[in-house]
Amino acid sequence: MTAYTSSRQAKRAAYIPSIELLSGVLAGSVPAIARMISRAEGGYAEASDALAEIYRHTGKAHIVGITGVPGAGKSTLVSSLIKAFASDGYKVGVIAVDPSSPFSGGAILGDRVRMNDAAQSCQAFVRSMATRGHLGGLARSTLQAVDILDAAGYSPIIIETVGVGQDEVEVVTAAHTIVVLSAPGLGDDIQAIKAGILEIADIHAVSKCDKPEASATVSALKGMMALGTVKASAGWNPPVLPVSSVSGERIGDLKDGIGQHWAHLQESGELAERQRSMCRTRILGTARHLFQLKFNEDVEEMEKHIQAVVNRDVDPLVAAYRLLGWDSEARVA
Amino acid sequence: MTAYTSSRQAKRAAYIPSIELLSGVLAGSVPAIARMISRAEGGYAEASDALAEIYRHTGKAHIVGITGVPGAGKSTLVSSLIKAFASDGYKVGVIAVDPSSPFSGGAILGDRVRMNDAAQSCQAFVRSMATRGHLGGLARSTLQAVDILDAAGYSPIIIETVGVGQDEVEVVTAAHTIVVLSAPGLGDDIQAIKAGILEIADIHAVSKCDKPEASATVSALKGMMALGTVKASAGWNPPVLPVSSVSGERIGDLKDGIGQHWAHLQESGELAERQRSMCRTRILGTARHLFQLKFNEDVEEMEKHIQAVVNRDVDPLVAAYRLLGWDSEARVA
Repeated sequence: MTAYTSSRQAKRAAYIPSIELLSGVLAGSVPAIARMISRAEGGYAEASDALAEIYRHTGKAHIVGITGVPGAGKSTLVSSLIKAFASDGYKVGVIAVDPSSPFSGGAILGDRVRMNDAAQSCQAFVRSMATRGHLGGLARSTLQAVDILDAAGYSPIIIETVGVGQDEVEVVTAAHTIVVLSAPGLGDDIQAIKAGILEIADIHAVSKCDKPEASATVSALKGMMALGTVKASAGWNPPVLPVSSVSGERIGDLKDGIGQHWAHLQESGELAERQRSMCRTRILGTARHLFQLKFNEDVEEMEKHIQAVVNRDVDPLVAAYRLLGWDSEARVA
Repeated sequence: MTAYTSSRQAKRAAYIPSIELLSGVLAGSVPAIARMISRAEGGYAEASDALAEIYRHTGKAHIVGITGVPGAGKSTLVSSLIKAFASDGYKVGVIAVDPSSPFSGGAILGDRVRMNDAAQSCQAFVRSMATRGHLGGLARSTLQAVDILDAAGYSPIIIETVGVGQDEVEVVTAAHTIVVLSAPGLGDDIQAIKAGILEIADIHAVSKCDKPEASATVSALKGMMALGTVKASAGWNPPVLPVSSVSGERIGDLKDGIGQHWAHLQESGELAERQRSMCRTRILGTARHLFQLKFNEDVEEMEKHIQAVVNRDVDPLVAAYRLLGWDSEARVA
């Protein structure tokens, strides 16, 4: 009993309250940043105040979303981009939410080690988010991780995501610049259209440009743009940029394109509008997550409402109002 | 001015308050039922009290969900089932939420007329729900339409849906007995697996059993069942029933299968559990819908929260709590 208590106290003593990590995060301390991200990831209630304070220090970074179906070569591309930006003096942050990403350990170990090495030599911060046990909170914790890197002075911050599923679309639409990566011959063109991610691209990248099939994919994308199935934005036509992540060929063009889009957002005044829409998406996503969380956890309350509806004491509409804690007399519907 | 006022008053006089339609609905009056469904469909706030009262009179009907990809032959199957149940003396109700359903006017006119004729000669009530402008309220209004038919004494009540999309899955899981229709040679087996609808089947029907490819589809389904990728339920193994909707062949087997599943639910005591899970899904779906509705309509409040987050006065978590009208001090996360 005594041993148990003291070991417990030792453990407690080792836990640094999130609020005390704050100054470390703002000063760019890597261990503090890593810890804070873990707490956002774990959904620690204790970290809420620290994260709220961190949020006040955000808004400096250029957030870049990179998405595309598995196998398109996103992670390799991200590695190349890290190097390209780093050689221009940028402090790059990467948050990978692709479960098949080598950063997440989804691919062969060799890849993973190679990429983390690349990141380390560039002073980049690379982190993958766990995609399980989130109860729909993936978007929330991912964007909190982006906040942490933003407050710590990283820019650009790249979010790598597979771009399928509501959470992941939510994440990628929280970026200033969205790059959609297509790969030739994967049949992923159709998949990407289905997933609705082509429409959100500010920049199209086509990987494996050293392969002969790449030009067909480039043409297909340009054709779709001519048909108007791409994002319409005053003064910005999403370019279609062939790249080779393996050889690093034309990665500079993509890096420049990302920079040009950022400049365009600022010069055209579109940045303010985009910030608003990013905030809107994020608030709604967070509210949806809170809702899900409450009703997955508050089993007793849920059971009470179910029983009332089963017994036909109330109809599902009234039960829903009660569940939300809203006044059913002031019905919206 | 005077003319305008009087025409307006005449229009007002013609509107029968929903609560006054109640006795007609409960007595099975078809015009009253049709009107009440229109009001549920339109989301009329005025109808809430009447619908709440109608809900108290529900719980008698056997609700059957029929789902399958477009082209599988759902509507033709439903027409055959109407006749089969009607000839046994049942008063059948059908709510179609498939936008491609002939009931909804999605197919060629000849089909539509033929089916509505079939329905009429059987004293069945057939109604299709509009799938647009619902702000995610499709599931809610569809299940309210089912309530209306239930209270009016219809049973079985068939919900026909294409089974893709969250709303439609929500609708079909609100049925006691779920029939998933597969068609041979449509490539829809894979589609159905992807959509996750095969797992929810209590009964598998395979259409076009007069075609030679049908037996391959039957074998494939049985194979999947052997692999355990189907619903596990004590004492009930989902049968795989070949049917021909066109010739009416073996429709009797499907009708009997549906009846046997209903008997199984009652005898095994599983019915209570299913009712609970139906209520749970419905409450959560309704709450989600209310949430969406409020924040699509309450633009000013939403703008206020967005501006606070844009200005970095609060972080998205606090904004989400405020949006929900929940206490952010009593944080769940």
